[in-house]
Amino acid sequence: MSAPTDILPLEVIDKTINQPVWIILQSNREFTGTLIGFDDFVNVIVEDAKEWIVNEDQNELVMEHKGRMLLSGNNIVMLVPGGKKDI
Amino acid sequence: MSAPTDILPLEVIDKTINQPVWIILQSNREFTGTLIGFDDFVNVIVEDAKEWIVNEDQNELVMEHKGRMLLSGNNIVMLVPGGKKDI
Amino acid sequence: MSAPTDILPLEVIDKTINQPVWIILQSNREFTGTLIGFDDFVNVIVEDAKEWIVNEDQNELVMEHKGRMLLSGNNIVMLVPGGKKDI
Amino acid sequence: MSAPTDILPLEVIDKTINQPVWIILQSNREFTGTLIGFDDFVNVIVEDAKEWIVNEDQNELVMEHKGRMLLSGNNIVMLVPGGKKDI
Amino acid sequence: MSAPTDILPLEVIDKTINQPVWIILQSNREFTGTLIGFDDFVNVIVEDAKEWIVNEDQNELVMEHKGRMLLSGNNIVMLVPGGKKDI
Amino acid sequence: MSAPTDILPLEVIDKTINQPVWIILQSNREFTGTLIGFDDFVNVIVEDAKEWIVNEDQNELVMEHKGRMLLSGNNIVMLVPGGKKDI
Amino acid sequence: MSAPTDILPLEVIDKTINQPVWIILQSNREFTGTLIGFDDFVNVIVEDAKEWIVNEDQNELVMEHKGRMLLSGNNIVMLVPGGKKDI
Repeated sequence: MSAPTDILPLEVIDKTINQPVWIILQSNREFTGTLIGFDDFVNVIVEDAKEWIVNEDQNELVMEHKGRMLLSGNNIVMLVPGGKKDI
Repeated sequence: MSAPTDILPLEVIDKTINQPVWIILQSNREFTGTLIGFDDFVNVIVEDAKEWIVNEDQNELVMEHKGRMLLSGNNIVMLVPGGKKDI
Repeated sequence: MSAPTDILPLEVIDKTINQPVWIILQSNREFTGTLIGFDDFVNVIVEDAKEWIVNEDQNELVMEHKGRMLLSGNNIVMLVPGGKKDI
Repeated sequence: MSAPTDILPLEVIDKTINQPVWIILQSNREFTGTLIGFDDFVNVIVEDAKEWIVNEDQNELVMEHKGRMLLSGNNIVMLVPGGKKDI
Repeated sequence: MSAPTDILPLEVIDKTINQPVWIILQSNREFTGTLIGFDDFVNVIVEDAKEWIVNEDQNELVMEHKGRMLLSGNNIVMLVPGGKKDI
Repeated sequence: MSAPTDILPLEVIDKTINQPVWIILQSNREFTGTLIGFDDFVNVIVEDAKEWIVNEDQNELVMEHKGRMLLSGNNIVMLVPGGKKDI
Repeated sequence: MSAPTDILPLEVIDKTINQPVWIILQSNREFTGTLIGFDDFVNVIVEDAKEWIVNEDQNELVMEHKGRMLLSGNNIVMLVPGGKKDI
């Protein structure tokens, strides 16, 4: 179905491996860090993730995680390669 | 099942590749930008997405994202090829 | 399982191609327009859709969309071939 | 698994074809009408459906639909062959 | 995986055919009646169902249904063979 | 994927057959009793279940069920072999 | 799809076997303990789990569970190998 010039979502994720990434969950929790893995269900592994909550356009750092973290695909709303700019 | 004159949803998305698109999520977040990829689960990749919230019929620009973003299919309610007219 | 006289839901949708249709989502958003496509997950494509909200039995036109729109099957509650009568 | 005397849900629906039916959705919307089709996902087609809301045990007629309507299986809670008695 | 002495849920349901049953939905609606059918998705058919709401430990009879009713598996939380004792 | 020393969730459930078990649902309802069956969807059968609600750390016994009960897997959050200690 | 340097989520979980783990559910319940098993649906088995609720950045210990516990994959939001640092 996808024309040759089209890009598959999993390809975009694949190209983000070892790169900064910004992930937003259904609960509005946000995470930035380095994407180091994923699977076909868009479960992802983030390294040294920082957890944020956005209150009235202000990014509040909730926690700095050391090491790896799995975020479950069925809760992910948005995944932005390159990370979050205004932090 | 679909008669020859009928159009498959994924065909419509396919024809929107590299075109403006307007996407509304279950949480009422809205995004406009260029559609550059998708898959069979209607996960989509949008380039240079603008994020909007509609308050009392007013489009409020929440954020301008540079580069690519993945929006997860299980949260998408509406996808409008051609983008949002009144912004 | 279905007896010969029975009608499959996708057949009803198929017969509504290029016809008026009225669609209600889980969020109570309503759309009328021309049905021009669908797939097995009841994702549908509507042309020139009008968006409505029903307040105290009054149909309020929210927006007129030009062109095609995809509505995602997992949010659709009701699909009425022939469109909405009292608008 | 099912003993010979047991009845499969889809058989019960099948036997309700062209019969009155009463359907209740997760949103508590209720519909009565003639069941004319269904599929394995319990998507159903109802003819000349009447829409009801029950307020303090009173059935309030919301709308009378002419013609066919599809009700999506993933929102259906209850399906009662024979229709609703006290309307 | 299941040891020989173990019982499969569908077996328990199968043994409840033509027996009293008590079913509780996610919306806290409760039904008692005779189980006459089911399928692998735990969609069930109940005969002459009584509908209950429990308020402050009091069982309030909401409605007596005559004939058969389908309850959709994805809303069922609990199914108790033998019915509800304290009604 | 699982290394030999690892334990599969269904194995843990299998080893709990005919043992006390404590189950917590998404609605925060809790059940203790004897686990006598399960399937691959983590639908479980509990014998002589006691139903609890926890209010301000106090376990309140809601109901004692006699005989078997099916709890549907898609609502189960936690399953604790050995039952609940502080009741 | 995944490049050789990429890590699959289930591999990360697999490497956490017999290690401390921190798990957060959709209901915001948190658990720390030793991960001793999992399956492809990210159902997990935790040994000697401690249950926490986070109130205004304070970790409140809700309960100490002895032995094994199954946490159902469809409720898990986050899984952090190595456990929770600030407890």
